[in-house]
Amino acid sequence: MSEAPARGFPRAEFEDRAERARRFMTEADLDALFVTSEQHVRYFTGFDSQFWASPTRPWFVVLPREGGPVAVIPEIGVPGMARTWVEDIRSWPAPRPEDDGVSLLVHVLSEVPQRFGRIGAELGPEMVLRMPVGDFFRVRDAIAPLAFADATPVLRRLRGVKSPAEVGKIRHVCQLVSAAFEALPGKLALGDTEWQACRKMRVEVLERGADGSPYMMGMSGPGGYDNIVMGPGDRALGGGDILIIDTGTTFAGYFCDFDRNFAFGQPSDDARRAHDVVYRATDAGIDAARPGATTTDLWRTMTEVLEAGGSAGNNVGRLGHGLGLQLTEWPSNRPGDDTRLVPGMVLTIEPGMVFAPGKMMVHEENIVVTEDGCELLTRRAPAEMPVIG
Amino acid sequence: MSEAPARGFPRAEFEDRAERARRFMTEADLDALFVTSEQHVRYFTGFDSQFWASPTRPWFVVLPREGGPVAVIPEIGVPGMARTWVEDIRSWPAPRPEDDGVSLLVHVLSEVPQRFGRIGAELGPEMVLRMPVGDFFRVRDAIAPLAFADATPVLRRLRGVKSPAEVGKIRHVCQLVSAAFEALPGKLALGDTEWQACRKMRVEVLERGADGSPYMMGMSGPGGYDNIVMGPGDRALGGGDILIIDTGTTFAGYFCDFDRNFAFGQPSDDARRAHDVVYRATDAGIDAARPGATTTDLWRTMTEVLEAGGSAGNNVGRLGHGLGLQLTEWPSNRPGDDTRLVPGMVLTIEPGMVFAPGKMMVHEENIVVTEDGCELLTRRAPAEMPVIG
Repeated sequence: MSEAPARGFPRAEFEDRAERARRFMTEADLDALFVTSEQHVRYFTGFDSQFWASPTRPWFVVLPREGGPVAVIPEIGVPGMARTWVEDIRSWPAPRPEDDGVSLLVHVLSEVPQRFGRIGAELGPEMVLRMPVGDFFRVRDAIAPLAFADATPVLRRLRGVKSPAEVGKIRHVCQLVSAAFEALPGKLALGDTEWQACRKMRVEVLERGADGSPYMMGMSGPGGYDNIVMGPGDRALGGGDILIIDTGTTFAGYFCDFDRNFAFGQPSDDARRAHDVVYRATDAGIDAARPGATTTDLWRTMTEVLEAGGSAGNNVGRLGHGLGLQLTEWPSNRPGDDTRLVPGMVLTIEPGMVFAPGKMMVHEENIVVTEDGCELLTRRAPAEMPVIG
Repeated sequence: MSEAPARGFPRAEFEDRAERARRFMTEADLDALFVTSEQHVRYFTGFDSQFWASPTRPWFVVLPREGGPVAVIPEIGVPGMARTWVEDIRSWPAPRPEDDGVSLLVHVLSEVPQRFGRIGAELGPEMVLRMPVGDFFRVRDAIAPLAFADATPVLRRLRGVKSPAEVGKIRHVCQLVSAAFEALPGKLALGDTEWQACRKMRVEVLERGADGSPYMMGMSGPGGYDNIVMGPGDRALGGGDILIIDTGTTFAGYFCDFDRNFAFGQPSDDARRAHDVVYRATDAGIDAARPGATTTDLWRTMTEVLEAGGSAGNNVGRLGHGLGLQLTEWPSNRPGDDTRLVPGMVLTIEPGMVFAPGKMMVHEENIVVTEDGCELLTRRAPAEMPVIG
């Protein structure tokens, strides 16, 4: 286990993010970015808090094309924001439902130097505006003719390419969770429920230095599982069962997202064969990931191996996606996505298939695209499922 | 430790929620409720998944004033939704950025029997619309003259009063986290970092049967901490330090939200006095919680004890709040809130004060309002801080 990287980033990292953002804003005819969500406030300021779990108070950051970021936040967050590189912090005593930051935000947006008359906001695909929509309408009406526009293309370009320091944090959590998955067969037992298996994995990653596991999914079934989003449940694991554990575990705000499969007792020949097919599809996806290839190429390469191996499709809709401050990020490995890979993109390689009625097999690894191919951030899954009991 | 209650609810619970919702809709001139967020999809359907951690795919539920709920969801969620009481499930192959459920949702909303021409949506305070706002605009334009209106008052009335089965789940997680807090002093040691202390508490609650801890905040400082939202950090705990751990831990979708304070070495007289004042303010808040009292009464009662004890205020903005499917819910114990307590409301009693420059003391307990007072769901904090080392 390598030493944990530092939490947070040097000031230069944030200055670089702001500088790239200003360049992309200019190209997109935006005078400022206006963000409200945990990942975007964190990306631009470094503000690091679990307090986002409380939906009561909105938080705003405005990054003008000219000038430094402005944090418009509840008073409770001022001591924390003061530790970041942000120098311009405005606050109000929240919660104050009659005016929860609305008039303050209108004032800050009105101060933005205007050239295009457009403010970029989180309005597009995979984005959620974390403020009451009713308040967003109030702000929109108050700042007219200054107008909100969709900032999604700018935010994707910015966050889609990770800095070496960001990759370092993702690599760290991928490695520690890989080690936890490797140790897990020694802790699992016939008779464990899905819940118990997932709790053991949660404890294992915590004891290895993870911050927490916002996602720790476990699903099982005789000879295979029928979906990968609904577990864990109270089902007890018996001979012939296959268990998948899929986890989004974090370190310093960055996610890993990968899974491992476990056989309880000797797996059926069908399950072994499916594991082998999906393992080879994963290899093919990793081999295909290099600058110039597209997400659609990755999808096609993996799909060819899966179909040759008898895949009856699956209901996931894609074979992997971006990864970073969120469990899933743009882009998607799917037909029609056509995103061209460039160095610094962090992706999951996630082939899966239905190999018999009600039986799926899904694998997942995490990579970063490099100058001449990709680096595997996780430790490769075992070629054969570990057998429990 | 009492036995864990069952996960999920009998069908009658959901029928009752739908029936109350229809009554409140009629009073609010709404033809349907349209919800997008984890807590509201779960409240109306029972759909139980961690997959909300992925922001890629939107999920919709429409509950008409006449007729059963309609789930409009990505294909990946169909096997899970099919396990709930919802019979009408429509799906599309997501992600499909060019039409991620928009046309399907427009079709379902257009089928709603209309009397008022208004659909209630999550547009108000403490609500987040979990779908791209750009897509919401598309739906709004397509269904006109049918119009969206704010459903916040209806959703608050519905969720603000918990059923006995809901209270049972909250009581269970409050009790198991109370036991974990009671055991924690035996696990903490001088020299632990805030991170290590929080990890020990995370493991402790998991081993006692919690599902996870979306919120596990730890803050410390010499003689007191200066905020309650920015930890944990890498600060090592030494003699004279006060540590607060505040957790939102879950069981079967329901949260507890309370904290405990720990002294490392003998606490200063100031810190002891502050602990005593805030302890008594908590007692006063619990004593004041009964049907007919208001959230503002709770705030006033606690504030009087805090001010008599030398409080210099605090930056939290309220002294407790609702609790349930979310870490913090309506209402707030604050001046001007004026919500009248009724049996079944679950609240945190959370007095806090600045007792010296840069030093806060905050306590928190969870209660449910009963016919003639309230029931403490947590086990009362010790009257004096446990001393570590």
